[in-house]
Order: sequence, then C-alpha cells, then structure tokens
Amino acid sequence: MTLNPELRNIVDFTKGNGLVTAIAQDADTGEILMVANMNEESLAKTIELGEAVYWSRSRQKLWHKGEESGNVQKVRELYLDCDGDAVLMKVEQIGGAACHTGKQSCFFNKVENGAVIDIGVQVFDPKQVYKK
Amino acid sequence: MTLNPELRNIVDFTKGNGLVTAIAQDADTGEILMVANMNEESLAKTIELGEAVYWSRSRQKLWHKGEESGNVQKVRELYLDCDGDAVLMKVEQIGGAACHTGKQSCFFNKVENGAVIDIGVQVFDPKQVYKK
Repeated sequence: MTLNPELRNIVDFTKGNGLVTAIAQDADTGEILMVANMNEESLAKTIELGEAVYWSRSRQKLWHKGEESGNVQKVRELYLDCDGDAVLMKVEQIGGAACHTGKQSCFFNKVENGAVIDIGVQVFDPKQVYKK
Repeated sequence: MTLNPELRNIVDFTKGNGLVTAIAQDADTGEILMVANMNEESLAKTIELGEAVYWSRSRQKLWHKGEESGNVQKVRELYLDCDGDAVLMKVEQIGGAACHTGKQSCFFNKVENGAVIDIGVQVFDPKQVYKK
C-alpha cells in the first residue's frame, strides 16, 4: 500500500531511512500521548483506516496500535510538517491510555534538577490487558 | 558535554543511531510547534541552557534553535518517554513562531481527503529574519 502522488510528493522518508516521526496528540486535551515511527505503508494504512498504524523499529513490522489491547487511536486530524519528515495526528485514544505501561501518556518521566520523577497517570494494569 | 549518570541511564540513543526525537510543545496553548532530533550533547546543552538545542541531521551539527532569528525556545518543562527514545519540551517560543517559514508551527500541512491544505498562521517574513 502506497500514498497517493500528492502526498508522496510532500512526505520525505529519505532523512529517516524510510521512516517519518509520528506524534499522537489527544484531540481534546492537547496532551502528547506518544511518539513512534511510520514507513510509507503504515502512513497509507493510517489514512485508509482512520486509526494510527505505526512501524515498529524493534519488531520490524507494521503495528496497528491497539490491535492487542483494543486501545486504538482514532485519527481526527492529520498534519505533515514543513519539510515532510514528521506527522502529527490529533487522536481519540480509546481506553484512555496510550502507553504500554497502562499510563495515559508515554511522557511520564519528568526531568527536574537532573533527576527523573514519574508523574504518570495509571489508567490500566498492563498485566490484565496484555495477557502473555 | 554529557548527561549525568541518572539521565544517561534512562535515555536510549541506540534505537535512533545516536539520536532521540525531540518535540517542542507550546507550554501555554499545547500546540505542537516542531519536532527534530537530539544527540547526547544537544540534550545536555538543552538542560544546561534551559533553551532547546537540537542536532541538525542535514547540517550534521548542533543547532541552538533561534541562534540566527532570535526565536529561541525557553524550556519550561522537560519529559522523557517510557522507553527513553523521545523527549518532550514544553516551551515558551520567543517571537511566536517556531518554523523557518515564519509560521507559528511547522505542522501547517493539513491532510484532508488525500490532499494537503496549508492552514498555517504566518508570524514573520523569513526573508526579513534570515538575511542571507
């Protein structure tokens, strides 16, 4: 699956070795939920499905977010940045949590005075959701 | 310049070949202003200065955002994500525009029905600011 010619012309996968950065932002609160990567196929699938589909660098495969947990990200709006190497999605996060830790956002490690403080909001217990 | 041991332990530069993704979010409005990359030195400098310092992949050097235009990004809060390969900065954007195009945000290309629409807010004329 590929992008249409207009989008293919503006999205730049070369700088990221075939990947662009993809940010998921809560459409209602503006909170940044997570950041991951997309290749052309995953971006095309995201647009087709209206749900976030990333490219997992660690597993080297398409990753339809929420396929296991049910916590999909419904894409309400999608933006490309000025040089086409990043995607911003304003999403509705089903289940209320984006992070595999069960926290609302992946950005729960606050850096203060050179130390890290966990300010995360726990939404679910990952042991209950990912039954492996 | 390097990170202190506590931060060095949590930030993961390996997955991005020495880089992490860095997102700048307007601290007041929640708008995503831009996304770029940081290596260890640039993240350490960002923390030391309290202003965003990126690593420019295209120029292969440290990039103290605003060094030319004066439009620095004052870092109010800094977060790391769950797996340590992304940084989120809540910033005060001096000059009101983050993008080299003179627009408020770099994410001005809205994708709708397979086409791209420019919804950008023009803050300054780049020809006036970058006198090259």
